[in-house]
Amino acid sequence: MSARNARPIGVFDSGVGGLTVVRALMERLPLESIVYFGDTARVPYGVKSVATIEHFTAQITDFLLGQDVKMLIIACNTMAAVAARVVAERAVGIPVIDVIEAGSQAAVAQSPGGRIGVIGTPTTINSNAYARRIHALDARVRVHSQACPLFVPLVEEGWLDHPVTRMTAHEYLRPVLAEEVDSLVLGCTHYPLLKPLLRDVVGPGVRLIDSAVTTAELAARCLQEAGLAHTGTLPASYRYVVTDVPLRFQTIGERFLGRSLGLVERVDW
Amino acid sequence: MSARNARPIGVFDSGVGGLTVVRALMERLPLESIVYFGDTARVPYGVKSVATIEHFTAQITDFLLGQDVKMLIIACNTMAAVAARVVAERAVGIPVIDVIEAGSQAAVAQSPGGRIGVIGTPTTINSNAYARRIHALDARVRVHSQACPLFVPLVEEGWLDHPVTRMTAHEYLRPVLAEEVDSLVLGCTHYPLLKPLLRDVVGPGVRLIDSAVTTAELAARCLQEAGLAHTGTLPASYRYVVTDVPLRFQTIGERFLGRSLGLVERVDW
Repeated sequence: MSARNARPIGVFDSGVGGLTVVRALMERLPLESIVYFGDTARVPYGVKSVATIEHFTAQITDFLLGQDVKMLIIACNTMAAVAARVVAERAVGIPVIDVIEAGSQAAVAQSPGGRIGVIGTPTTINSNAYARRIHALDARVRVHSQACPLFVPLVEEGWLDHPVTRMTAHEYLRPVLAEEVDSLVLGCTHYPLLKPLLRDVVGPGVRLIDSAVTTAELAARCLQEAGLAHTGTLPASYRYVVTDVPLRFQTIGERFLGRSLGLVERVDW
Repeated sequence: MSARNARPIGVFDSGVGGLTVVRALMERLPLESIVYFGDTARVPYGVKSVATIEHFTAQITDFLLGQDVKMLIIACNTMAAVAARVVAERAVGIPVIDVIEAGSQAAVAQSPGGRIGVIGTPTTINSNAYARRIHALDARVRVHSQACPLFVPLVEEGWLDHPVTRMTAHEYLRPVLAEEVDSLVLGCTHYPLLKPLLRDVVGPGVRLIDSAVTTAELAARCLQEAGLAHTGTLPASYRYVVTDVPLRFQTIGERFLGRSLGLVERVDW
């Protein structure tokens, strides 16, 4: 067992949402250590300009590279949509994967009828990043996208199974469902928490693609292929680094992570 | 007419919401020039820590003092709640007013039964700033507060008269209305856009205190008392300075301002 493979995976997001990816990684790769970075002082990125998002993304990438990570996971759809190139340019020699690549691969594999729905924040949807990656994998697939700006605040309010959330979901999903999609990509790290409600709304004929789960799958394959998987017996360690510890951070973070957060470190930028 | 009185009023907020205060100022004080500062790159403040909010507030105050303003208006409830002291310490020799002071004064004046409801973001409500200021004005008044975290995203989605917003408002306001309040303070600059819907929900017996309108009133009184009112015939000028020009900024900004925004300047921090 090389010390090289014992290095942690770096996972980052604009806030707490990426903890759904950490949760999926803990389940799929229980031996791997993780350093999570959440830019809670500057969240949300989804309403910011591309130049600003690129600048913030570069800062976070450099920070995690300084933690000697063996792989980087962009767990933020907004950063993956508009700033993946910034990460790849900096992270020379280590694999970089992101939620959009993972979700797109899974959606194409699981949509025999060639019709895929994608939901996300306005920035993710307007970037057209999912449609571009899906078409690069299979040019014949038809992609139907829908921005759902209220889903993040509804999740953060904790209204995961609430009539208001249900009514909102029906309104947002009506045009996508009218296209009779085979699958629906949950293109935002907050959305896995709405899975039970969305399952009801879309009905049994539509497969939900949870990009947290698909990202953990892709990470497992990548580590294996690169010979970087950790096979030792040491318990995995988890670190959580944020730029601000806001009100209710612990509560909301633990809802996303599905377990206790432990110690949260704060860096001051 | 002194050149001193022709100087602009500086108005600031964490984002676009403070434009409701600018709109009210334009109507109440049509001769006054205004420099508006919106920290759109770092919005929202409502979920950030006090230390971070103080730091950002100091930066904005210094910027506006550099624009030779004759008065400062804190049009952001979050900054008024937790960082008003930071502004007052820097703005030596010019009047500083804020939305919480204005709303509290109006609420006390318009609540003969001594029962006041206050709604706002979680940070504003948890800061207890309205209750403290109201009690400083009249210790006998009873204040019933309620955080309404979904109202800002609902306004930004443009669902000003939508069944989802109505259902959300009924849920949030139920406990406050059960206390039979005389008035309800709209303790967030986004909320004036929900006034028609909230009027329906609270019914005719409850007076809505719009802190944009009450802030413009307080500004008019303060300028008069300080001998700073502009009485010339030159047309007022309006400048809008932001830290980022995000997606849909123009659309959302104009919805708040109620007129065309014109040129928006961006500063890079």
